Amino acid sequence: MKMEKLIGDILRQNGWTLSIAESCTGGLICDCITDVPGSSDYFMGGMVTYSNESKVKYLGVPIKDIKGYGAVSPQVAKKMAQGVRKAFGTTFGLSSTGIAGPTGGSKEKPVGLIFIGLVKGKKTWVMKLNLKGSRREIKQKATRKALQFIYKTLIHSELIAKTSRSWSLLEENTCPLI
Amino acid sequence: MKMEKLIGDILRQNGWTLSIAESCTGGLICDCITDVPGSSDYFMGGMVTYSNESKVKYLGVPIKDIKGYGAVSPQVAKKMAQGVRKAFGTTFGLSSTGIAGPTGGSKEKPVGLIFIGLVKGKKTWVMKLNLKGSRREIKQKATRKALQFIYKTLIHSELIAKTSRSWSLLEENTCPLI
Repeated sequence: MKMEKLIGDILRQNGWTLSIAESCTGGLICDCITDVPGSSDYFMGGMVTYSNESKVKYLGVPIKDIKGYGAVSPQVAKKMAQGVRKAFGTTFGLSSTGIAGPTGGSKEKPVGLIFIGLVKGKKTWVMKLNLKGSRREIKQKATRKALQFIYKTLIHSELIAKTSRSWSLLEENTCPLI
Repeated sequence: MKMEKLIGDILRQNGWTLSIAESCTGGLICDCITDVPGSSDYFMGGMVTYSNESKVKYLGVPIKDIKGYGAVSPQVAKKMAQGVRKAFGTTFGLSSTGIAGPTGGSKEKPVGLIFIGLVKGKKTWVMKLNLKGSRREIKQKATRKALQFIYKTLIHSELIAKTSRSWSLLEENTCPLI
């Protein structure tokens, strides 16, 4: 079964929703998620924020973060994920920022450097990728990694939710298993 | 040469910019446009407005239009294109709204009914499509049609711009050819 279908099933089963902010992947993650029939039940929408202005205006990324760390940085990936989650009012917010190439790379930030951000409530995760290939291949690999990342996090979140629930039923004031 | 490359060349040559609001195509048009290296020069960004709330909040589509005509209507396609153009401050705004299926269709609005909106300044065009196929095929066909639509309009706009310029150089107060 395709990863985007598995993601959709977990989101629906838990009543969770998702929004996505994409820079380097340029809409491809949204495209995958919306290939699943009925995805409008849990996917509220996305933003393809190619320009820095749109990252500031629609995702609330502080201009000082873009200037200080660069648009391709874990800090901006985190703020993009937080921003899109807030904008669409969803359970999870996912983001991508990176250098798809073939130009735009440097020694410090080469082509293929990608950060994937994911946020749920106050919890934020950022994944760093160093990918090889053509522009299209880098977009595709980053998208696949982003989908795997959210899938694993959803599985983990589901486990925590279920475990916490069962523990709270069993015994109050007991630490959950995870 | 691929359509998205041709579109990029015309946009760049004329100093024009583009933004895209997608509903039924779910990010696929943005994905195609951003496959072209250097597309960040003319593509400012996009929005995947799956929920009606996001169409209202980010694109300024009047709720009365969504309630009155439905989210899948030429009126909403027009307002989405106008809204995204305004949001990103671009020369052109492109939009898609439709029913990708396999569910969600009705007798009046069957699966495969898609409206593509395009706006430049005060000029707006809306194209109606009736497509067949799976959800993925409908997304792909709608995207191809949208790219052809903007390509033809760009060629036309370029011709008008060039013709007007040459006429204005040749003779003042003369009607342009087109």
